Amino acid sequence: MGVEIEHKFLVKSDAWKALGEPVLIRQGYLSSHPERVVRVRIYGDEAFMTIKSKAVGMSRGEWEYPLPLDDAREFLDRLCEQPIIEKTRTRIEHAGFTWEVDEFLGVNAGLVVAEIEVPAEDQAFDKPDWVGEEVTDDPRYLNSNLISRPFSSW
Amino acid sequence: MGVEIEHKFLVKSDAWKALGEPVLIRQGYLSSHPERVVRVRIYGDEAFMTIKSKAVGMSRGEWEYPLPLDDAREFLDRLCEQPIIEKTRTRIEHAGFTWEVDEFLGVNAGLVVAEIEVPAEDQAFDKPDWVGEEVTDDPRYLNSNLISRPFSSW
Repeated sequence: MGVEIEHKFLVKSDAWKALGEPVLIRQGYLSSHPERVVRVRIYGDEAFMTIKSKAVGMSRGEWEYPLPLDDAREFLDRLCEQPIIEKTRTRIEHAGFTWEVDEFLGVNAGLVVAEIEVPAEDQAFDKPDWVGEEVTDDPRYLNSNLISRPFSSW
Repeated sequence: MGVEIEHKFLVKSDAWKALGEPVLIRQGYLSSHPERVVRVRIYGDEAFMTIKSKAVGMSRGEWEYPLPLDDAREFLDRLCEQPIIEKTRTRIEHAGFTWEVDEFLGVNAGLVVAEIEVPAEDQAFDKPDWVGEEVTDDPRYLNSNLISRPFSSW
């Protein structure tokens, strides 16, 4: 098991777009229950299944396994809760950490969030200029919640 | 994807017990939703994750992946819907097919079912003497339903 400690922010400008190459992500959920999330994700031409336990503070347990791409496509198209999430992810190095900027498509178009994973909850880090308000504790921004309550419905 | 076509029966005697060696199974569900079952199973000293789509008649899609044993134990103990299912499985060859007899433990103690997997819905097969009433279409006997409504509560 890994433990994932993440901060999540809104962005306040498009300056991040010049800093990396977007990769298309399609992901869906076989379970979006907060105590046992089962996520299927196609990232570029690779696919993964990820299990996440309930978050305690900013930390949650996370286990990831590779999946055959054809199986992942079938899960997303036929089995997962609908609609699935589609977004691009742009990875940007800044001051020793990797930021991941997710620009959502489809029913969540208009939403852009930037995430940083850190090794400890009290880890200090530098925020790029284009990073805005922190929304780590706002459950509306959980990808698993963006299915039942997409950004376009807020 | 495999397609699983199974018949499920009650047993009417203990004669099956002399015909094979029981293996302990512990299994639980990260999702017991009928359209997207996610099952974690420890079978002897091996572990698997199995995804099952909604059944259409006797057939349902099934995908299985090996899991690290330690991960499976953690899922069963910490993440899966509780209580988990514990049972022994005895595999018995009869007239060209393999029967699996599951004797349940814990909250489902007293329940014994025998299953046969066949290659087609109209496949003929011979029933051993100890096999009783067919319960394939009775959802109470689905393992995923034996958690919320265990046999001891019927």
